[in-house]
Amino acid sequence: MQNNPSVVLRGTKDIVFENRPVPHLKDPHYVKIAIKETGICGSDFAYYATGACGSFKMEKPMVLGHESSGVITEVGSAVKTLKVGDRVACEPGVPSRYSYEYKSGHYNLCPYMAFAATPPYDGTLCRYYVLPEDFCVKLPDTVSFEEGALVEPLSVAVHANRRAEVHCGDRLLVMGAGPVGLFIAGVGRAFGAMKVIIVDRVQPRLEFAVKNGFATDYYNSDNKSTEDLAKYINQKWDGESPTVAIDATGAPVCIRTALQVICKGGRYVQVGNGKTTLDKFPIARISENEINVRGSFRYGVNDYETAVGLIATKKINVKPLITHRFSFEHAAEAYEFFTQHKAIKIIISGPSSLKSKL
Amino acid sequence: MQNNPSVVLRGTKDIVFENRPVPHLKDPHYVKIAIKETGICGSDFAYYATGACGSFKMEKPMVLGHESSGVITEVGSAVKTLKVGDRVACEPGVPSRYSYEYKSGHYNLCPYMAFAATPPYDGTLCRYYVLPEDFCVKLPDTVSFEEGALVEPLSVAVHANRRAEVHCGDRLLVMGAGPVGLFIAGVGRAFGAMKVIIVDRVQPRLEFAVKNGFATDYYNSDNKSTEDLAKYINQKWDGESPTVAIDATGAPVCIRTALQVICKGGRYVQVGNGKTTLDKFPIARISENEINVRGSFRYGVNDYETAVGLIATKKINVKPLITHRFSFEHAAEAYEFFTQHKAIKIIISGPSSLKSKL
Amino acid sequence: MQNNPSVVLRGTKDIVFENRPVPHLKDPHYVKIAIKETGICGSDFAYYATGACGSFKMEKPMVLGHESSGVITEVGSAVKTLKVGDRVACEPGVPSRYSYEYKSGHYNLCPYMAFAATPPYDGTLCRYYVLPEDFCVKLPDTVSFEEGALVEPLSVAVHANRRAEVHCGDRLLVMGAGPVGLFIAGVGRAFGAMKVIIVDRVQPRLEFAVKNGFATDYYNSDNKSTEDLAKYINQKWDGESPTVAIDATGAPVCIRTALQVICKGGRYVQVGNGKTTLDKFPIARISENEINVRGSFRYGVNDYETAVGLIATKKINVKPLITHRFSFEHAAEAYEFFTQHKAIKIIISGPSSLKSKL
Amino acid sequence: MQNNPSVVLRGTKDIVFENRPVPHLKDPHYVKIAIKETGICGSDFAYYATGACGSFKMEKPMVLGHESSGVITEVGSAVKTLKVGDRVACEPGVPSRYSYEYKSGHYNLCPYMAFAATPPYDGTLCRYYVLPEDFCVKLPDTVSFEEGALVEPLSVAVHANRRAEVHCGDRLLVMGAGPVGLFIAGVGRAFGAMKVIIVDRVQPRLEFAVKNGFATDYYNSDNKSTEDLAKYINQKWDGESPTVAIDATGAPVCIRTALQVICKGGRYVQVGNGKTTLDKFPIARISENEINVRGSFRYGVNDYETAVGLIATKKINVKPLITHRFSFEHAAEAYEFFTQHKAIKIIISGPSSLKSKL
Repeated sequence: MQNNPSVVLRGTKDIVFENRPVPHLKDPHYVKIAIKETGICGSDFAYYATGACGSFKMEKPMVLGHESSGVITEVGSAVKTLKVGDRVACEPGVPSRYSYEYKSGHYNLCPYMAFAATPPYDGTLCRYYVLPEDFCVKLPDTVSFEEGALVEPLSVAVHANRRAEVHCGDRLLVMGAGPVGLFIAGVGRAFGAMKVIIVDRVQPRLEFAVKNGFATDYYNSDNKSTEDLAKYINQKWDGESPTVAIDATGAPVCIRTALQVICKGGRYVQVGNGKTTLDKFPIARISENEINVRGSFRYGVNDYETAVGLIATKKINVKPLITHRFSFEHAAEAYEFFTQHKAIKIIISGPSSLKSKL
Repeated sequence: MQNNPSVVLRGTKDIVFENRPVPHLKDPHYVKIAIKETGICGSDFAYYATGACGSFKMEKPMVLGHESSGVITEVGSAVKTLKVGDRVACEPGVPSRYSYEYKSGHYNLCPYMAFAATPPYDGTLCRYYVLPEDFCVKLPDTVSFEEGALVEPLSVAVHANRRAEVHCGDRLLVMGAGPVGLFIAGVGRAFGAMKVIIVDRVQPRLEFAVKNGFATDYYNSDNKSTEDLAKYINQKWDGESPTVAIDATGAPVCIRTALQVICKGGRYVQVGNGKTTLDKFPIARISENEINVRGSFRYGVNDYETAVGLIATKKINVKPLITHRFSFEHAAEAYEFFTQHKAIKIIISGPSSLKSKL
Repeated sequence: MQNNPSVVLRGTKDIVFENRPVPHLKDPHYVKIAIKETGICGSDFAYYATGACGSFKMEKPMVLGHESSGVITEVGSAVKTLKVGDRVACEPGVPSRYSYEYKSGHYNLCPYMAFAATPPYDGTLCRYYVLPEDFCVKLPDTVSFEEGALVEPLSVAVHANRRAEVHCGDRLLVMGAGPVGLFIAGVGRAFGAMKVIIVDRVQPRLEFAVKNGFATDYYNSDNKSTEDLAKYINQKWDGESPTVAIDATGAPVCIRTALQVICKGGRYVQVGNGKTTLDKFPIARISENEINVRGSFRYGVNDYETAVGLIATKKINVKPLITHRFSFEHAAEAYEFFTQHKAIKIIISGPSSLKSKL
Repeated sequence: MQNNPSVVLRGTKDIVFENRPVPHLKDPHYVKIAIKETGICGSDFAYYATGACGSFKMEKPMVLGHESSGVITEVGSAVKTLKVGDRVACEPGVPSRYSYEYKSGHYNLCPYMAFAATPPYDGTLCRYYVLPEDFCVKLPDTVSFEEGALVEPLSVAVHANRRAEVHCGDRLLVMGAGPVGLFIAGVGRAFGAMKVIIVDRVQPRLEFAVKNGFATDYYNSDNKSTEDLAKYINQKWDGESPTVAIDATGAPVCIRTALQVICKGGRYVQVGNGKTTLDKFPIARISENEINVRGSFRYGVNDYETAVGLIATKKINVKPLITHRFSFEHAAEAYEFFTQHKAIKIIISGPSSLKSKL
């Protein structure tokens, strides 16, 4: 008999294992996936630590996880491109096919989005999960399930670079060297950015970025001013300033710094989430220099496919980011370990070993 | 003998007439223009009232004026498209042909711009002014010199609508019903915006906007909240919100309101100048809804030509904005009258009548 | 008891009336429409005259018609924006919600499109027709059902102008003054084109175009060469050539002429259908002048909405195009009349009068 | 005493050495360059073999060469970014700063372009050549003069990829594996194309392309049909067709094939020059599938800078293309050798060794 062991967050720091019903295919376009690997994201951790993330609040127990890969175990009657046994990366948010946003090519903005591990929707840290065919992207044999689990944050970086229109010849400034910042930098290079500087206060992260080819330069902003950064870039880049900046921190000082440092007519993209509003936004600089400020939210059409392609064609090597691994039955410990900020990326493997226990 | 009577601002509220040297053609591409009509802009008034405008400060006496039309009186040897007697609108800012900004099609951002009546450059309130051929745009016979003087602020509105990518089908919100706000609204309609709502606290301006076809709707924001405006638009526009907002005020409350009211994925353009920085900028709204915030600065390639075309093809009627006229010898009074805020647009005629006096 | 009288084409020039089953709502997002007015399109006529249109061939009797307006008579349980009694324009092609083209915002290219009166799908010349909610666009009270029937060809023109990126300041050349060519010209003006010249060999059509404001200029190309047209435009437009050309004829000579006449870097859009291939395509001109050649197929996201908006806001007056009207029971005569090329647009009214007969 | 030995083409296959006057700086923005290395282009060869190239015809003796690098030996008084001794790649075409095309960011289309070795302008195969500062791009120490000479054809490839909007995720088809075709493929990869297939009939060129990383796949089209190619790509690329095609051949069969093989909504760019017109252009495919056909001509803003950057950052390795080298005094032999089609790229070194002879 099938069962569906799941990692359920009941309340703050209260994780239990539950045997949830195995989900059914919702319509003939759906497939069922046996989850193999799942990454922990900052938002998962926010629910774990506080029961909320941004404006979303948990109101009932919720299965955690939304960065997953797996194997197809069942396909609906209308499914054309997948078959049982296919290895896939799972896109965790399913929009309405009837929304204007979906129809116009911007489904990430769909107001009816059902997103894994975002209240009230359960996540992917379970044995079986169902998705529409086109929200699963096939992994080539050369791409591992672990890499497949990283496709989700990598897609955030792909989308941010698309919103920023990073193209060959650009000079990119990335604020923040967490997993998303690192991916934004690395994807920027794959998009053709000639120079990529990454800024953070954690020296090992910065060195990691350059050593692994995610950036060409780094800057440790600890105790440094905006002018210091501007001067450093100016010297390093022969007097040229960034054409594009992407913020992956949400920190006010980082946002203001990036907006000061980019060139006239430059593009700035906000990915990181911080407070609802920002003080001292440099509005005159925006206006007089025709700066372009854009938000970037999750990912949309082609982003998952491109992320898988980037890994498959070795345009980016995501493996070095995985610093820690936990088995399914130690999921609670994985979340607790996250609090120590020692990991870049933690991966939790699928529940196969748990089968007998539940 | 030629002479060049000029309206010179010596210091705060200190206007005198001087007979400046008649300028020579700087190179074979230049033409000489006899100035016919000149509008007063808020920036002119700022110098008059305070000796400064934004970050620019007067350090020596300066000829005022930069919204002018006139007649060609001399052409350089390389001039191909203009001849003596042609009636033209004068583009007041001349960039460097060697700057990267000029070369890449964005000369309004050229750091070497010499802009009339912006320190240290003299303005156009004089008898003779010189410009490169391609910074004069021919006026058809059907367009008067007065209308020609309004081409400058109209070009600001054209550029703002281009930066906003206002196209057929858009719903446009304009904050501010001064001359630039009114023109932005009217140009928005000519660009195909289906619905245009203009917001201000001066009721006659709002009624003027709708009566003259610059907007389809107006909203008096006096004592009203952002929610009030959102509710009003929602009712008026069958539940649809603006796809584009352009701020012509620079006022923090207007900026924040506009950013709250536009739709997901919408475009916001900053034209109006206020303080250097803005508090409570809704950064989370930008990020989660993929809002696009863009600066718009003066005008660039084709904007003057389009502005003349809009008047010539009667897509916009600018005449009703001219509420007051002064002769050249009463220029000082015109500036003083500006302080009373009774005029929409004041026009000062050229110095022909002064000829004998100086 | 409900019935569904329908105009059925059994074979070449063989129209009969059949009482087809009243269609059921296919899913909760569908609505049922009582058809009020339907225009005749050239493709309808092609099936009538030859049993085929382009690569499509009739293989069984087919209900004709795809340019329709009507009244909502039933709504599915998931319908939110329409209610019984609403007056709507009917978009005749329903794509798959699961296609990549739909997902990426280009549903007009969906390979699974079910398009009215395109084999094997029945058309709209019947009493009752069903569509998904979002493929019906509400008509304001000020827009008549007849105008609503013209929304379909008007949407073709909206889409063509969008593909051509016609914006304020453009100079537009339209080849062909049939209904679609006329609409392309008129929509071009509404999109902000400063100058619009329409070319055809039928003098009354050309005069109609200018008289009704669809174009600013016309050119009768009968016995004229490409050079003649170029010279005419050059004189008329002060030495400036078109920035955009849209062909609504499919005729080789028109295509080649338009490609010769537009300016460097100009945009050319192919709407009209002719033969499968074209000889003497000016490839060197394309390459050396960086001309942009684009296809335009039917219409997509927002095009129907914009077309209704253009009529509602009086940016275009479509009524003068309707030159002939037939009742439902005289539909066969309407098709026969079409062969005489006397009409610009023929409208067939809905089947209410037929109710008792069938 | 300075002298200026130059390789002069007097008539068909008639090359002589002449000591031309050392050119003077034309204005304060000019610099003088001592030419170090020069590549031979197909157009040079066309003049050599026939006295003409496309619509250009030699009417007097002309210095050959336009793919050059060199060292700055003199700078004008307004020059800011270069100094004597700087190593540079030379952009061979100087547009008018006053043309509309230059002003609007498209100087490659300037009708007043003075292009090296294009009648009536002399080329760069000489000791001293002069250019405006901003038409010389500095070579980092890591980039050799030989690589610098290849910046010209590489810039053609950069421009073509920009016109094609090749971005990360694209699948690119390149027709032709001559130097430009190879560069287009290699630049396509640097722009982020996931898959790049190159098509030619010369097997060693194809193998060269894949071996050196310019393409991921190749196809030998000898005796193959369009259907064969389509089938091959389909199998190789899991059922996906190219999103972009760039033709570097000008051959009718290649153009038609590429237009058939790309996907719906795909982009096609014409770089290669062939006959003036093309028969059997698939106009219905363009129209029904909304294909985009664009010309690409030489290179423009930022293209030379990007090409140098691609070499400097090792995103492309251009060295393997240089298969043959000749000294300045053997320039005539180099042109004669070109006729044998054995070389990919021939480089002729500067005239230093000739100094004493002339």
